[in-house]
Amino acid sequence: MSPARLSRLAPAIAEARVDGLIVCRLPNIRYLTGFTGSSALLLVAAEGGGETVLFTDGRYKTQAAQEAAGLRVVVARRSVARALAGSVKRRRLRRLAFESRGASFELYETLRSRLPGVRLKPVANVVEKLRMIKSAEEIEKIRRAAELNSAAFQATLSEVRPGSTEAEVANRIDYQMRALGAEKPAFDTIVASGPRSALPHARATSKALASGELILIDQGAILDGYSSDMTRTVALGDVSARAREVYHAVLEAQLAAISEVRAGVRAAQVDGQARKTLEKHGLEKSFVHSTGHGVGLEVHEHPRLGRGEKTRLEAGMVITIEPGAYLEGLGGVRIEDLVLVTERGAEVLTSTPKDLLVL
Amino acid sequence: MSPARLSRLAPAIAEARVDGLIVCRLPNIRYLTGFTGSSALLLVAAEGGGETVLFTDGRYKTQAAQEAAGLRVVVARRSVARALAGSVKRRRLRRLAFESRGASFELYETLRSRLPGVRLKPVANVVEKLRMIKSAEEIEKIRRAAELNSAAFQATLSEVRPGSTEAEVANRIDYQMRALGAEKPAFDTIVASGPRSALPHARATSKALASGELILIDQGAILDGYSSDMTRTVALGDVSARAREVYHAVLEAQLAAISEVRAGVRAAQVDGQARKTLEKHGLEKSFVHSTGHGVGLEVHEHPRLGRGEKTRLEAGMVITIEPGAYLEGLGGVRIEDLVLVTERGAEVLTSTPKDLLVL
Repeated sequence: MSPARLSRLAPAIAEARVDGLIVCRLPNIRYLTGFTGSSALLLVAAEGGGETVLFTDGRYKTQAAQEAAGLRVVVARRSVARALAGSVKRRRLRRLAFESRGASFELYETLRSRLPGVRLKPVANVVEKLRMIKSAEEIEKIRRAAELNSAAFQATLSEVRPGSTEAEVANRIDYQMRALGAEKPAFDTIVASGPRSALPHARATSKALASGELILIDQGAILDGYSSDMTRTVALGDVSARAREVYHAVLEAQLAAISEVRAGVRAAQVDGQARKTLEKHGLEKSFVHSTGHGVGLEVHEHPRLGRGEKTRLEAGMVITIEPGAYLEGLGGVRIEDLVLVTERGAEVLTSTPKDLLVL
Repeated sequence: MSPARLSRLAPAIAEARVDGLIVCRLPNIRYLTGFTGSSALLLVAAEGGGETVLFTDGRYKTQAAQEAAGLRVVVARRSVARALAGSVKRRRLRRLAFESRGASFELYETLRSRLPGVRLKPVANVVEKLRMIKSAEEIEKIRRAAELNSAAFQATLSEVRPGSTEAEVANRIDYQMRALGAEKPAFDTIVASGPRSALPHARATSKALASGELILIDQGAILDGYSSDMTRTVALGDVSARAREVYHAVLEAQLAAISEVRAGVRAAQVDGQARKTLEKHGLEKSFVHSTGHGVGLEVHEHPRLGRGEKTRLEAGMVITIEPGAYLEGLGGVRIEDLVLVTERGAEVLTSTPKDLLVL
């Protein structure tokens, strides 16, 4: 467990004027306690309000005791939610906050019906906000996940040739990741070729790669619980002059956005820098998503780097910078790095080169 | 979309005395409409209560129109939940059922706050119950997913040798699945060797396989949306006489449970048959989970085949039969097939042999 992280929750719990916080989302529970199982609830007591307790089921008895060493663990005989409700009753807690996005309506109903007279207050993003700022240890893990991801990309490049299918290339990437020690891919690896690269949410299909196409590859690896995320767009043989122009415009936008990153800058400003650069090239309407997002125990975390996002970047945030341009018929280009926010700027954690690679 | 499946919901909607059902769980939405995207809500109107509408977001505009052809699709400008609430308001629906396990508390709150005066009634397992009985087309898909799974197992056997790690074998299995056309594994492939095979929920680790060990392999493949699920336990070289005894007891229990399967039999009775057989061998306390579960669009579906489960099997159900025995120190054995329930008995969909394989 992490007493330091748990104690960082105290101000939010005090502000909500509750006796404790019920944490339902598993990545949040992992962050606060170290527990990695698939079934748990965590009751974090307000300062001076007694013990913090992890509730899980019989399958995880040994694992919870090991991973959350130092924390009180209750193994539920039947339901984890009922075990938590019983504990709340015995401790006579009267007001509890709970994670509204993590809780199913069913969990809420169980708590409500078993805890008459207890006030249940929905809250959102309390732990997620703490998780935005990574510790040195977390940064090191993300750095290693990014290195592994780049190594898997490099090892797969020889497979990216005319006739290979998108699905085959994605399969090789995922295989290489795990051969290099990753737990698993952080998301379904995207390999999108030719006109399909213009679909920002394309998946890898049975389409064969053809000479003259742009190939967009978006991949992430989970290592020691932490995710990485990288996109590269490569050319299979000679691509059109227009495709090269778009590539260089997106690269310029990506570099411009990175140069805008430093502690104190608003997320929207980094996004705006990417948009402004693409606008210069007449591509602003072809950039249909936001510039980036936080990465950590989950591959999509706060903050979001998009229009109107007022969050100010802080040192220790790890974010993606991934502008793109998608042109129906021609194809799409996206270039994505993982970036660590520092007081003075950005440290790019992704080592894979960004010059247009022609295979 | 599937008008036949949608119309099978009518009795449940009538019984709940509501104007419609809000379907939140994505596998249920896929089952009813064909839509495979990651963001959707479905409003199924009561008979005579107007149109059924699929709500999704801008990313899925084209895909939803294609996959759910014939159904009205609304693309939400901001939030899918708000788009649904707006539609409910305009149509003046007064009472709506919603899936309590699929809905987050946040979704419930959005609906409640935007639909004052509308009664929201939580229901559970309405669509899941329909999904228990598979159509001929679904059975064919599961059959192919099971065949692919067996082929991936066969192709990987040569890698199961002393010195390979559990993680390496799992990686090869998953690679073979996808090389054979699977979308992805249905769950994290389990490869558990020696003493680790005694942990029913073991994962594949960096432990190397050693001669004389039992190796438990639990794998499933998703093909065309449908899952398969199979476990085999193999011997790496000579294993102890006791390990062989346990293997044959579990195999006897598995065959006994399969012979109990037919339409009309209660789920608990099949489970009981496996337990009774293991009891004969003094292994009843080493069987720490239930005998099986339904398989379809999800790898764990209704019915559960466990103690006290009163559900009667029906022709067209596809279930696993997977008794096991886990002995600390010695290791564990589990043997799992996919089985189709028929009027007269069971058809085993898994073709991989079950004699103890010595590698």
